[in-house]
Parts: sequence; C-alpha cells; structure tokens
Amino acid sequence: MTERRDGRAADDLRPVTIERGWSTQAEGSALISFGGTRVLCTASFTNGVPRWLQGKGRGWVTAEYAMLPRSTNDRMDRESVKGRIGGRTHEISRLIGRSLRAVVDTKALGENTLVIDCDVLQADGGTRTAAITGAYVALHDAIEWGRDKRFIGQKAVPLLDSVAAVSVGIIDGEPMLDLAYTEDVRAETDMNVVATGRGLFVEVQGTAEGAPFDRSELDRLLDLALAGTERLAALQRAALEATA
Amino acid sequence: MTERRDGRAADDLRPVTIERGWSTQAEGSALISFGGTRVLCTASFTNGVPRWLQGKGRGWVTAEYAMLPRSTNDRMDRESVKGRIGGRTHEISRLIGRSLRAVVDTKALGENTLVIDCDVLQADGGTRTAAITGAYVALHDAIEWGRDKRFIGQKAVPLLDSVAAVSVGIIDGEPMLDLAYTEDVRAETDMNVVATGRGLFVEVQGTAEGAPFDRSELDRLLDLALAGTERLAALQRAALEATA
Amino acid sequence: MTERRDGRAADDLRPVTIERGWSTQAEGSALISFGGTRVLCTASFTNGVPRWLQGKGRGWVTAEYAMLPRSTNDRMDRESVKGRIGGRTHEISRLIGRSLRAVVDTKALGENTLVIDCDVLQADGGTRTAAITGAYVALHDAIEWGRDKRFIGQKAVPLLDSVAAVSVGIIDGEPMLDLAYTEDVRAETDMNVVATGRGLFVEVQGTAEGAPFDRSELDRLLDLALAGTERLAALQRAALEATA
Amino acid sequence: MTERRDGRAADDLRPVTIERGWSTQAEGSALISFGGTRVLCTASFTNGVPRWLQGKGRGWVTAEYAMLPRSTNDRMDRESVKGRIGGRTHEISRLIGRSLRAVVDTKALGENTLVIDCDVLQADGGTRTAAITGAYVALHDAIEWGRDKRFIGQKAVPLLDSVAAVSVGIIDGEPMLDLAYTEDVRAETDMNVVATGRGLFVEVQGTAEGAPFDRSELDRLLDLALAGTERLAALQRAALEATA
Amino acid sequence: MTERRDGRAADDLRPVTIERGWSTQAEGSALISFGGTRVLCTASFTNGVPRWLQGKGRGWVTAEYAMLPRSTNDRMDRESVKGRIGGRTHEISRLIGRSLRAVVDTKALGENTLVIDCDVLQADGGTRTAAITGAYVALHDAIEWGRDKRFIGQKAVPLLDSVAAVSVGIIDGEPMLDLAYTEDVRAETDMNVVATGRGLFVEVQGTAEGAPFDRSELDRLLDLALAGTERLAALQRAALEATA
Amino acid sequence: MTERRDGRAADDLRPVTIERGWSTQAEGSALISFGGTRVLCTASFTNGVPRWLQGKGRGWVTAEYAMLPRSTNDRMDRESVKGRIGGRTHEISRLIGRSLRAVVDTKALGENTLVIDCDVLQADGGTRTAAITGAYVALHDAIEWGRDKRFIGQKAVPLLDSVAAVSVGIIDGEPMLDLAYTEDVRAETDMNVVATGRGLFVEVQGTAEGAPFDRSELDRLLDLALAGTERLAALQRAALEATA
Repeated sequence: MTERRDGRAADDLRPVTIERGWSTQAEGSALISFGGTRVLCTASFTNGVPRWLQGKGRGWVTAEYAMLPRSTNDRMDRESVKGRIGGRTHEISRLIGRSLRAVVDTKALGENTLVIDCDVLQADGGTRTAAITGAYVALHDAIEWGRDKRFIGQKAVPLLDSVAAVSVGIIDGEPMLDLAYTEDVRAETDMNVVATGRGLFVEVQGTAEGAPFDRSELDRLLDLALAGTERLAALQRAALEATA
Repeated sequence: MTERRDGRAADDLRPVTIERGWSTQAEGSALISFGGTRVLCTASFTNGVPRWLQGKGRGWVTAEYAMLPRSTNDRMDRESVKGRIGGRTHEISRLIGRSLRAVVDTKALGENTLVIDCDVLQADGGTRTAAITGAYVALHDAIEWGRDKRFIGQKAVPLLDSVAAVSVGIIDGEPMLDLAYTEDVRAETDMNVVATGRGLFVEVQGTAEGAPFDRSELDRLLDLALAGTERLAALQRAALEATA
Repeated sequence: MTERRDGRAADDLRPVTIERGWSTQAEGSALISFGGTRVLCTASFTNGVPRWLQGKGRGWVTAEYAMLPRSTNDRMDRESVKGRIGGRTHEISRLIGRSLRAVVDTKALGENTLVIDCDVLQADGGTRTAAITGAYVALHDAIEWGRDKRFIGQKAVPLLDSVAAVSVGIIDGEPMLDLAYTEDVRAETDMNVVATGRGLFVEVQGTAEGAPFDRSELDRLLDLALAGTERLAALQRAALEATA
Repeated sequence: MTERRDGRAADDLRPVTIERGWSTQAEGSALISFGGTRVLCTASFTNGVPRWLQGKGRGWVTAEYAMLPRSTNDRMDRESVKGRIGGRTHEISRLIGRSLRAVVDTKALGENTLVIDCDVLQADGGTRTAAITGAYVALHDAIEWGRDKRFIGQKAVPLLDSVAAVSVGIIDGEPMLDLAYTEDVRAETDMNVVATGRGLFVEVQGTAEGAPFDRSELDRLLDLALAGTERLAALQRAALEATA
Repeated sequence: MTERRDGRAADDLRPVTIERGWSTQAEGSALISFGGTRVLCTASFTNGVPRWLQGKGRGWVTAEYAMLPRSTNDRMDRESVKGRIGGRTHEISRLIGRSLRAVVDTKALGENTLVIDCDVLQADGGTRTAAITGAYVALHDAIEWGRDKRFIGQKAVPLLDSVAAVSVGIIDGEPMLDLAYTEDVRAETDMNVVATGRGLFVEVQGTAEGAPFDRSELDRLLDLALAGTERLAALQRAALEATA
Repeated sequence: MTERRDGRAADDLRPVTIERGWSTQAEGSALISFGGTRVLCTASFTNGVPRWLQGKGRGWVTAEYAMLPRSTNDRMDRESVKGRIGGRTHEISRLIGRSLRAVVDTKALGENTLVIDCDVLQADGGTRTAAITGAYVALHDAIEWGRDKRFIGQKAVPLLDSVAAVSVGIIDGEPMLDLAYTEDVRAETDMNVVATGRGLFVEVQGTAEGAPFDRSELDRLLDLALAGTERLAALQRAALEATA
C-alpha cells in the first residue's frame, strides 16, 4: 500500500474542523478546514427573490467561490485586477450552487434568496469539496435565521437533506480519499463526489488526468468517496448540534 | 417504456452525420450533426508552442467552444458584446480540451500547437458531446496535415486512441441515450460521458437536476453511455476511412 | 485586360448560392456564398420594441456581424475572449443595420424587433457584402413569419425594396467586380456599394488603399457596382420565389 | 433655395479657424473650429516603430478620436467609465488614420511613429471632418519637429500632399456643404468626403439616412464636397505659412 | 532661499486665468489655467436625481476627472482604450466631488443633479487643484442656470461658500506653494489642501514622498496653503463678478 | 463627554490583536483585528523586480486591498464579478503601498519584490488603518524570510522604521480615536493618519464629511492620532518580539 506523505491511510480524511458562526456579519457562516485547506463560507439571507423569479412562491440559492491571491504557494493575480473571472472559478461556483440546490426545497424556502460565498483563505487541495461541506453549515444557519425572523414558515422544511463533498483519486494505481495538493498533482484520475447525508449522489465528476480509466477503477473510487461523504455528514451534524 | 418524442428507443442515438473537411481554410475540420444539433469543428495547426512550453519537446492541444447567438430557440446575446465569457462556455471549452488531450501523446506531437474551435451553428441538446465527437475528426486531419508538412515525424503516433462523447439521462425513471433539448430539460439526472475508442472513460460528469440518484441508477447510465460512445467511435472511423 | 486568378472577367460576380431557411431555429435565415465566402444570416423576430421606442408605433431592425475564429486563413482570437469588439466588427455591424433599415418602413413593421446575425463561417473577401445580401433574404422571411403570426398586418408592406451589396476595386489600374481576398489585398482603391433592387444607392464607401483616386475612376467603379447589385437582386428574387 | 439657419449659402463653409501650436506639450498641434465644432488635434512623435514593423524601414501613423462628455448638448457617458469604446468612435478613429496615411510616404518617414489624437472639445456637426483637417496640420508640424531632431532625413518628403475633409448632405432635396448639427439631423443623405490638396479622393462615404439616392444626387454632392475641400486646403496652407 | 525655476517666490501662485463660459453647450463652464496646466471644467445640470435618491428632496453633485492622452510630456494611453479607469483618476474624481459637495446645501439644491467634468487639456502639475478651483466656477453658473429655469427656488441658497484648492510641498527643506510639474517631482512632501472662501478646511491630503515629516513642517505647509486658497477665492469672485 | 457605544473613552483604541504567521503559505502574514474589523495581511516575497526596475539595484513594494463580499453588514458584489475595481479599493491599495514604501530602504532591499495583500474578512470601520498596521508585520517577516534565504544581505537594513495607522474623527463636536463603523458614519470630520514608530507623519488624510473644519480642530485630531499610532507601534513590537 502506498504510504501517504502525511501518514494517512488510503481511506482516511485529513483532520476536518468546522468553526460555525465565524463571521458576526453574515446570517450563517463557517470557517472549515480540510487539513491545510481553509475556506470561509458565509451565507447571506435576503427576503425577496430576483425579478425573474418573483411571484412564483419559490426561493433562490446561489454561490460564489474565489481564492485569496496568496492562498496558494505561488501568489496568483486577483481576478478583480485581471477584470475577468477564470473558467475554473466559474466552474466551481456553479458546482457549489447546484450541490446546495439539490438539497433545498425552494417552495418551502419561500421567496427568499440565499447567496453563499466561499472564499479560500488557504489552499492545499480539495478547496471545492471543503467549500461545499462548509457551505451547507452556513446555509443551514442562515435558513434558521430566516425562520427566526419569520421570513420562513415555522413548519417549513427547506432543507431536504444535508450535502457534503470529497475528492478521490488514483495514485500509483491505488484509490485514495481526500487528496492534498501534492497528491492531487500526482493523481492519474481525479474525481469529486458530492453526496447527501442519506448517501445519494448529487454530482459525480471524474477526469482522467493521465491514462483513461476503466469501469472497475471507477467503481472503487465511488465506494471510497461515499465512505468519505458519510463521515463528513457526521461532522456537519456534530457542528450543527453544538450550541452556535 | 417511455415513448420518445422522435420515435427513438431509449438506447438509440439520433441520426449522426459527419461532413469531414467542411472548411477549406482549416487544417482539419468537420461539420457534425447529432439530430438537430450542428457543430462546426475546425482544427488549426501551428508549428511551435506557447512560450511557457518551449524547449520541452512537447506539443499543446486546446479548445474553444461557443454558440452562435441564434443557434438556440431564443436568441442569446453574444459573449463578445457582453464583454465576458460565461461560466458554461468556459466549462465546456475546458472539457473539450481535456477530452482531446487524453488521447494525445504530446511527446509524439512534437513542438506543435493545435487549437480546436467548436462553434455551435444550431443547438438541440448535446452540443458538448457532438463538439467532442466532431473535434476528434478535425484534430485527426490537422495532425495528418502536420505530418504531410513534415512538422510531425513520419512514424510518430500522436493519437493514442479516438475519443467521443454522449449524453445520458433519467427521464420519468428511465435511462435514455443522447438527449434532445426537450428531453434534457425534463431529465432528473443528466450525465455526459467521454470515452475512448477502446471503451475507457475520459470524463464522467453526472448531475442530479432533480432528485439525487443512487448507485444502481448511476450504473445503468454508465452502461448506456458506453454503448453510445462505441457506436460513435465506429462512425468516426467510417468518416476517416472515406476519401477526404 | 488583367486576367483574374479564378478566370473571371472584370465584371463577373463569383458563383453566388443562397440556401434559404438553413436554420430551423430562426424565423428567417440564409446561408449565402460568394465564391469561398460563406455567411450564415439569421433573422430573429420579437414582438415588441426596446423600451426607448415603445409607444411610437414603429419597429426596430438591427444587425450584428462576426467572424468565426478559423473562418480566415490564419486563426484570429475570439472577440469574446479578448473581451472587446474590434473596430472593424463594429463598423460592419453598423453598415449592415443601416443598409437593411434603408428598405424597411418601420411604421408598417409595427412595434416589432428584428435582429439580424451575420456570422462568417468562411472568409474569402467580400464578407460584408455577402452578409448584406443574405441578410435581406433572412429579413424577408422573418417578416413573413411575423405576418403569419399576425404580429404584422396582412396588408402592411414593411419592405419598400430589396437591398444587396457588392465590392469593387481598382487592380493594376483596372476596375474589377466582387473582389476575392487575394484581389482585395492588391487593390489600390476599394469600394463597397449597397444598392436597392430599384438601383438606388444606400451606401457608397470608397477608400484609397494605395494612391488617391480621381473622379473618373470613381465613376467607373460606381457603374460596375450597380451592374453587380442588379444581378444580386435577381438572385435574391429567385431564392425568394422558390418554395422555402 | 433652402435658407440655412445660420444664413449661409448652400455651398458655404462655416467660419474655420486653425490655432496652430495650441499645445506646448505635443510635437505638433492644432485647435481647429468649424463653426461651433472645436477639436484639439495633437501629434505625438516617437522615434521607433511598433515591434511588428521593426526592421522594414517604414514608419507608422495612427489616430484616435474621442469626444469630451459634455462636448454635446446632452452629456454622454465617458467611454472609459463604460469600459468600452463605441462603434462610432472606432469607426472615426480608423477613418482619420486611413486619411492621414493616404498622404504619407512611410518609407520617407523612416522608422518613426506618429500618433494623432483628436479630442472634440465642443461638437456641432462635422467633428470627423474638422478632426481630419486639423490633424493634417498637427501631423505636418510633428514631422517637421522630427526633421529638426534629425530623426527624419533633411531631404526626405514624408508628406506627399495635404488632406482635408468636409461633409455634404441633401436637405429638403437640396445639396448643402458642411452641415451643422441641426442640419445633419435633417439630412436625407449624408456624405463625408476626404480629399487631397490636389483634389483627389481619399475616402467617399455616403449614406442614405432617409430615402436612397440616385446617381445624379451623388454627383452633385461630390462636386460640392470637392469645392469645400479645396477651400480647406487653402486654409491649411495659410496656417502652415504663418510663423508657428 | 531656493530659487524657483520660473522665478516665483516660495509663496507665489503661478499666473491663474479663468475663462468663464468657455463652452456653449454646458450650463456652466470654465477653462482654468494654473501656469501651464489647463483644465476644461463643465457643469451639466439635470432636473431630477438618480433613482436611489428620489423623493428625498435633495440634489446630487458628482464629478469626473480625466486627462487627454497628450496633455502630458509623454503620451499616455487612453483609459477608454485600456478598458479601465486607473486608480489615480478614480481618486481625483472622488476628491473633486467631495470638495464640491462640502459647499453645497443639497436640500436647497432640490431634486436636481450636477455632473462636473474636469478634463485636463494640458498638464504641468496641480491638475487636481486647478480642477477643483475651476469646477467651483462652472458649478456656480450651472446652479444659476437652474435658478433661471425655475428648477431651483429664487430664494434658495445652494452654495454655502466657495471652494478652491492648491498644492504645497517641501523642496530642499523649504515649503513652496503651487508646485509645477518639475517641482512636484522633486518634493519630499506633497500636500493638497482644499479650503472654502471662509478659510475652513475641506480636505487635507499630505504624503511623504521622501522622508516622513514632522509636526512643524506640517504646520508650515498648512499656513502656506491657506494663504494660497485665499487668493484663489478672490480670483474666483472676480471671475464671477465679471459679466458672463 | 460623549459616551461611546462600546464604552471606550474618546482616546481609547478598540482591542487590537495580531496573529502573526496566520498563513502557512506566505513568507510573512498577520491576521489583525481592530475590534470587529479583521484583516488578513500576507506578504509575498519574490527574488527579482519588474522589468522596468531591473538593473537599478533597488527593490519594489506594492500592496493590494480588497474586501470579502460579506465582510460587511450588507453583502457587496465582488469586484471580480463586476469586472472592475472600484475607486475606493484603488485608493486604499495605493495608500497602503505608499505607507509601507515610506519605511523601506529599497536599496537595502536589493532587487527583490514584496507584494502585500490585505483582505478584509470582516469590516467594522478602520479597515485601511488595520490593514496598514498588519501589513507592516507581514512585511517585516517576509523581509526576514528573504534574509534567511540569502536574497537580502545579512547586514542590510531594509526597514528604516515601523509604520502604523489609525483613524480619528469629530463626533458631536468631540475628537475621537479609532472609529467603529457606526461612529464613522456619524463623524463630521474623518481623518486617517499614518505615522512611523518614531512619530513622524507618512500620510495625513482629513475630509470634512459634514461641515468644513478649522485649524484648531485639525490640531486636536492630529494629537489624538499620534497618541494612537504610538500605542499601535508598541503592539507591533510586542507581536514581532514573540516567537513566530
């Protein structure tokens, strides 16, 4: 078995911490760490929906992802300075939004809008999966804020399930869970899996970075990923059960 | 069994045509149709590579995807007029590029650059999968052009395999192959699969548009998709065996 | 007399084809060829007008022109990627719009909007003149679509005349009609003439690329151009008389 | 005969003034007025040419046109604030550049670059024609500056001729010279003519704003314009003969 | 005592001229010179306020600053061409707006908007201070125009005071008033002071360009600046007392 | 005496904390809090300088400031999404850069570049002053990193002094130190003072938000500010003396 640089077993997550309520400004927030990866997730609640959705009795959930310029080992130029958002940023923002919407009943949410911002303060692989996992906690708390303020009905159940995400990959022929940056770079195949607390898939995105992969490799990666998201779901529950 | 609007069986592709060499300007080109979806794929060959890759003895393959404003039922604003490229466009351009690179041996390609442009002239679902399938044909011919011009060695084998893509989805609980636009809109789960001529996966991107999906649904979709890409690989071979 | 590379006489058009109704999505469309130049023209009909024109009982016609990146011999960067539209693109879009509006009675059109998109799929000189000539056919059919849908009155006559365009130039001292790309590059003087089916001028744009030109040269170019637009008008009529 | 609002005859220019050397910073400059239209033209001389032109022994002349936001009756937004240059601005900048290059022998200019800026301080019709006419004076003086500094040979003749421009139009059926803004708005046909001091055409741009126009109308407009540019050429000569 | 290149004493302003009403288009205007620095200031009056201010009975005053590309010794690229406004331009536009608003009673102004444009035609140091000083004159006249048109009440007093600005700096250890460009470049400390006709501060912006400065140096600069703005206030009064 | 909402005396700072070395990626970093304001400052060290500075034996220090979208009470749009950087952001980035450069001897720094990023994670007034104060700590550590790596000489003294900043303002007629957001909004006059550890001024920026202010008010604000920066300098020293 390949020994991992940080001593983990192939099916170990990195240490995960969730600082719920990190921000005193946002209606919901969480500073989440997957090892050296740290993402600040805030959820902004607004009563009302964008014009194109008005009068339909449904809410709206969207997300934006970004990295601080020196979250990475080499400083990156700011997208605001470049004047345009890169393809990777767009792609991840859309992924986070879809992942959250998959567990939201927009009818139960009512005409309210939730904008989730996931800003990567420090990056060491798996920033998108940490972002989704932390975003769920922030979203949860912002929805409860909306319920306290009576923008959401007391009996409404806008959250149908929890959602979390993890990366998996094949390194030197062996499937590994939750890749750190140095592992991610070496992976032949890289997959991000988003799954609900009940163990259903929301997104499966697998990419052959090196050689194309076969069906049995795909199956082993999916097994590993579902075990990982199950543990993340438990950590989310623990964070949400603690007194905020 | 759900009857499909156009009379196809669940595991039927739409009629596929590949007009190889449509463009007289590009080194390789194909106008590909998947039913009402029509994509013009051109491959531009340049001797030399971008500065950051110089002197490494490797080539570069990249792709850009775009839709004509009235390729769709409602006219869309041009991205050039909006002054920025949307997230979806970025995402698909990156997907096409990765898919092609998965079957290219950049060492064998030598210090040459191939830019593949996939412009959707008419859209009726599956534009990204048609684009990948057509792009491979254009890429093939541009590489042969480079060989004729002696930019690529006579015995070099830059293409390791062929690559094609197809969409699959679950509609009313049933897996379906190669979704037309009206089907895509109704699908609960939507998946794009990119696979090589040998039947290996390059990309698997599955998204729960409605309810999250379970492992057995995922397995059935993967089966259906691989059957589809196998047939597309045969159509690519037929097009490339015809006299250009 | 200068022999033209493609064997044409000085006053010959290149072979012109008009594939009316090429697009199944647009209300009117034409794929037009002037020799190797191929432009896809679509006309999008919308009931209603922009806010600034509302309540005045008049319609609006506008046009956008663009080139596919590999329509030309050397691949050009996409304007969407550059984030800005070039001066030449702007200039031609405006020319096409003005040319079409010159033959439209916006009162008879009623409060309806027509957006004409002219996308150059392949370029070999004269793209703007082919675009105008094809755009008229697309516009015509979109207006008839609007009449069928009862957005335009049954007796209204929104089109006052037809409109077509052709380039002329002086090469080695001799006036030539409908310049191909290699001719255009060599021309000392280059002129684009837009004229109606009745033979009236809509636009005359002459430019000394080399030495300035005198009045008699200008006169000879105008004669040649009017003969060309007369033949194009006949081809437009033939296309529109065929069953769509 | 239509009486003009400002009492001019149909073939009269507005009062034209040329303040040569207005700017103490630029190598050549002129503040030109055509009636209420006032344009500051500066010519910037740089020894050397852009990279793509190096080593060919030829110079480069280019121009940029812009309007101050409150040069017009209603304040316009700044193009710098909008973040993009409009089509009209692009079109006019290109026209000025082509017009100047038509009278420049770039071989005689040597590897030197001239950038002409034409900024409209106040607009009352004919801003592009005033700009071209003033730009020639600024260009002339910047070339002489370059000769004084020995960047241009003492016997070189970079200017082959002078160049000036004027607008003409048909108002209520009658051709008129040098349209003021209120006339321009009413004109059925509007034409800008750029001609050399020797009376040769550099650019002819005629547009039917209302009804298309016939050959005899075109001929009368051309006659009127050439008479106008001849007078402007005399005014340029007078300005350049005065001690700077 | 340091001798100044232009022979001025340390506490001398450069020659100041104010051409009030330079523009025939704007409701108020002034072409102001501080030595070789020339700024065209126009004030545009609009009845009504931006949407976010409607119904509050208050007016709005804002300003935009820009430099012509060849206002400086070396030609600068246009911000419209670069597609973005630089930090310095933003900073100065904001400063001018704040300075003017400090002397405006927006209640007395009523729901009217004033946009002040300050375009630097020629730059030789102190462009922002000349702009503020000229902008006040343009603003004054545009407010009077609004009063004449009865958009502002006959007894309303929208202007609480006048406002003017001047630069001061320490050169070779000595405080100097109204720095020309060559002085500005050499200054160790550079300060811009905006003050009202009554001698109160609106803005104080001091920057150590070289070594940090102490309290006594700061005090001497403030004394010098207030003496300068007092003289500028007198020149503004003189300009406004002359018949426009 | 006005009672401050948080119980502070007029001349009290808010609680200040400096978490030195917060980032494991950057060469120097500090997470600084001024009460509810939290700014992450990172310093990126690069051996070498921008092209325009090469070969002069001097280094370069620059800074960028930005706010997370939900750092504030109401979510702001991202500048990357808007595609342009606002004037306030530009202004503060430039201020931070100038402030740091005032205490750096670029000769002693050698040909090395330091980019300081100040990202506001949570905003409650005084973000620019907290940013400058934290940036100094990050800069200090990045310079020491460069010394350890031998990019900077062992005896070189690139830092001439420390630098810190604080806001002061007049509220209800009384000068107050280090304004929280709700105080800042109410202040008649608002001033930011940047000063070195030795008590010299680097920047003084005072603005009359309400009524203009007189000389004695200015003097009282300067006294208060210098007392504040003196205490901040002590806190910086304490943080830097602790073991990193």
